[in-house]
Amino acid sequence: MTAQASWPTNTWYVACSSDEVTDKPLGRQICGQRMVFYRTRNEKIAVLDDMCPHRGAPLSLGHVNDEGDLVCGYHGMVMNCDGNCKSMPGQRVSAFPGITAYPVEERFGFIWVWPGEADKADSDLIPKFNFFDDPEWAYGGGLYHINCNYKLMVDNLMDLTHETYVHATSIGQPEIEDEAPDSFKDGDTVVTRRTMESIKAPPFWQNALKFNDLEPTADVDRWQISRFTPPSHIMINVGVAIAGKGGFDAPADQKASSVVVDFITPESETSIWYFWGMARNFKPNDQELTDKIREGQGQIFSEDLEMLEAQQQNLIDNPGRQLLKLNIDGGGVLARRMIDKMLKQEASAS
Amino acid sequence: MTAQASWPTNTWYVACSSDEVTDKPLGRQICGQRMVFYRTRNEKIAVLDDMCPHRGAPLSLGHVNDEGDLVCGYHGMVMNCDGNCKSMPGQRVSAFPGITAYPVEERFGFIWVWPGEADKADSDLIPKFNFFDDPEWAYGGGLYHINCNYKLMVDNLMDLTHETYVHATSIGQPEIEDEAPDSFKDGDTVVTRRTMESIKAPPFWQNALKFNDLEPTADVDRWQISRFTPPSHIMINVGVAIAGKGGFDAPADQKASSVVVDFITPESETSIWYFWGMARNFKPNDQELTDKIREGQGQIFSEDLEMLEAQQQNLIDNPGRQLLKLNIDGGGVLARRMIDKMLKQEASAS
Amino acid sequence: MTAQASWPTNTWYVACSSDEVTDKPLGRQICGQRMVFYRTRNEKIAVLDDMCPHRGAPLSLGHVNDEGDLVCGYHGMVMNCDGNCKSMPGQRVSAFPGITAYPVEERFGFIWVWPGEADKADSDLIPKFNFFDDPEWAYGGGLYHINCNYKLMVDNLMDLTHETYVHATSIGQPEIEDEAPDSFKDGDTVVTRRTMESIKAPPFWQNALKFNDLEPTADVDRWQISRFTPPSHIMINVGVAIAGKGGFDAPADQKASSVVVDFITPESETSIWYFWGMARNFKPNDQELTDKIREGQGQIFSEDLEMLEAQQQNLIDNPGRQLLKLNIDGGGVLARRMIDKMLKQEASAS
Repeated sequence: MTAQASWPTNTWYVACSSDEVTDKPLGRQICGQRMVFYRTRNEKIAVLDDMCPHRGAPLSLGHVNDEGDLVCGYHGMVMNCDGNCKSMPGQRVSAFPGITAYPVEERFGFIWVWPGEADKADSDLIPKFNFFDDPEWAYGGGLYHINCNYKLMVDNLMDLTHETYVHATSIGQPEIEDEAPDSFKDGDTVVTRRTMESIKAPPFWQNALKFNDLEPTADVDRWQISRFTPPSHIMINVGVAIAGKGGFDAPADQKASSVVVDFITPESETSIWYFWGMARNFKPNDQELTDKIREGQGQIFSEDLEMLEAQQQNLIDNPGRQLLKLNIDGGGVLARRMIDKMLKQEASAS
Repeated sequence: MTAQASWPTNTWYVACSSDEVTDKPLGRQICGQRMVFYRTRNEKIAVLDDMCPHRGAPLSLGHVNDEGDLVCGYHGMVMNCDGNCKSMPGQRVSAFPGITAYPVEERFGFIWVWPGEADKADSDLIPKFNFFDDPEWAYGGGLYHINCNYKLMVDNLMDLTHETYVHATSIGQPEIEDEAPDSFKDGDTVVTRRTMESIKAPPFWQNALKFNDLEPTADVDRWQISRFTPPSHIMINVGVAIAGKGGFDAPADQKASSVVVDFITPESETSIWYFWGMARNFKPNDQELTDKIREGQGQIFSEDLEMLEAQQQNLIDNPGRQLLKLNIDGGGVLARRMIDKMLKQEASAS
Repeated sequence: MTAQASWPTNTWYVACSSDEVTDKPLGRQICGQRMVFYRTRNEKIAVLDDMCPHRGAPLSLGHVNDEGDLVCGYHGMVMNCDGNCKSMPGQRVSAFPGITAYPVEERFGFIWVWPGEADKADSDLIPKFNFFDDPEWAYGGGLYHINCNYKLMVDNLMDLTHETYVHATSIGQPEIEDEAPDSFKDGDTVVTRRTMESIKAPPFWQNALKFNDLEPTADVDRWQISRFTPPSHIMINVGVAIAGKGGFDAPADQKASSVVVDFITPESETSIWYFWGMARNFKPNDQELTDKIREGQGQIFSEDLEMLEAQQQNLIDNPGRQLLKLNIDGGGVLARRMIDKMLKQEASAS
């Protein structure tokens, strides 16, 4: 199945947020594979196939024992965190076939899993996002389950033209579509950049200006810089600065800005786990502000769900239909090309 | 797909009631095709494929702009009412491939759509139902979505024997099945006719007699005359007259009668849009009466849903089972034969 | 379809409890076949295909008339209890093809049906369970619908090791898995037997001891003796006796015991009707006690549902996965072997 999937597997995906994984096992399907996530001793994370080798029961219905091992909730098979059978009352288990243990790393407040060949997993391949570990920055976010292929979400985030229509009352504004975006490869990433000069800020950014003691109705320069890191991680620098002060490079007291964080993880060919959030480098210790931003962002980002799921349904029902690739789609096209290259490499290696 | 469908496509179907279609786009699947219905300028109706040629988003999630054009709610593609791309911010769209625009007519308070070859569409082919435009007549009705093939509903309405069982407490009565119906072709229509003489009226018609200042418990002559117009429009003259006064032809003050209106439109092979209603030529301006009749009819007609959906499920699960065609099924058999002829003509033409 | 099904068909299954079947028809799918169950005159039971030979409507939506015949609720076809068309208003029905009538017996408070070849049905083949008809015994039970193959439930009941995990707070205890069970064929049945000596009783059995005026915290000998009768009937002798008094054979005033009754009937390849209950030979006339036991057992047995349905889902999603057969699975393995033999006999006969 892996060979025909639309996603690469020899790469890292965000599977859970750190606080979702405890010593109570969590079952979650990632890239078509049912996995069970849990913490063993010393807060170490383990990820196994969510299927007991004894009778096929999901291990996520089991529990972690005092030794930090996962115990099947049906007949008590005890699994090592490497996927081998460790013990079972009244049985010699040493010769039993094991199950897959997936390479896993905890980083940036997320659990990263490598669904492909374990011997190729290298934690250095997890992309670097420095602001997560910087005390000058704060982060808040959430998780949405959406019934669409992960590439549709990549398209969505690499073409912010849709803000004008889908998010008309918050971050959208007609000026977005007046400015063609600029898309290009930057090393192993793809960047789509759009700047708008001397415009009025839309409601969301007027609030942000006010919050930074700037005049909300002032003319501003606005920017949106989406950076795609394969297979499906997108960071978007967004903000407004008082017009003529340098835009993205304006001094901190002349702008309001943040980084939109998007980790998109396939669950199946037609569903994703979408980890969204916002990182900011002002008032990093103000938890109330973090909560308020998260609530607002969650509401705005939920506006995409209906559209993405309806789009996916249309594509399923019209498999032969050719879609258009316009200049606004340039970022998505480059990103898909990068994904296709990974898929091709995996196919030829196997 | 069209060639194997159980419905003809080069013909008119009722897709919506007039008041359902406004400048807020309405998505509805008709004959297996997802369509979007909306009013452009001057109340004109347009019907397009519900799929933006840009990225496949449903156009029914968009809006109609001030010029009466449909705008995609994802990235702002503007569509002409003929299915061509009209404009898009920052794009030259003239060479873009368009989508299907369906022939459409508004008539009798309904939106009629032609799902087949547009060049064959002729508004003169919409059947005539004179009472809709006659001020002496009033009409009220509703819409049900039912999970069955449209032919099962044709059968249902061309054999009213089922009233005795399905509608036992309102319009059914044992005398119905004592009288064999008479089924025959009448030009391009099929008629099934049943008359019952010198019987007692069932509850629904007792009420109607009372309402017309006639004695509800009097002996009456009752009639049911179903007329099928292909592909799936059925008008049923129903009524009771004081016995011996001429039945269907009795003077107005000796009877209670009306026309049951049924427009059946395939959504898929196993679901329909069922537009039902009643037309009457007494007290045509009494809206309260219209509402009351609609409510009563809606309740009676809802009794068919469970049966039709369970019947459909049985047929799906037992594809090879041969069913019986009895004399009471004569009308349905003739109607299906007429449908089959249309299907055959369409198949040989393509 | 029957040939490839996972269940034998020339055998008796429990389809309903006696009180479920009245003169109001009951539709229920047994072994992949939709059947309608009803009482004709003199309380006799009849079982037919749930599909009217006229237009395919489910007969379970009809009614039983004064003569004890089943009347279709759509157009009034009257069916004999042998599946033949008896009459229909205005029709000669004698030559109409009939539908399947299934051999049926009412015994032990249950309706037994034979889904296979009627001429092979023999009521003497219904297994004997003498306590049902013994006035010294009482019975109470219920019905669960579970989305799993029937063999998974057989496995469950032939390996009670799972009590330690699934039913940890009632009948489970660690000592269960310390004792390996003993599995063997006994004539046409399979027995799995486990005894635990000089242990403490788990909560459920402590209550039972208390109820019998025995010391709940006393050392006891405990037994679990599951007996499988093909295709899927399992009776389990369970109980505890004061240690050293003879266990299963201890005198009545030194023990607490009962028989768990399990009739497992396939609905489809991935769903079952599970009739569970408990028979006891003390205070047989105490209805309040019967109700209390049923409530407690129903709660305990409901704990298996989530596990069985999740296990089934895992097996569907991983069709190629080989599962382990351990010594605790011996009873299930022998039972499946007996089922396979029946299937092989049916396949070679047809």
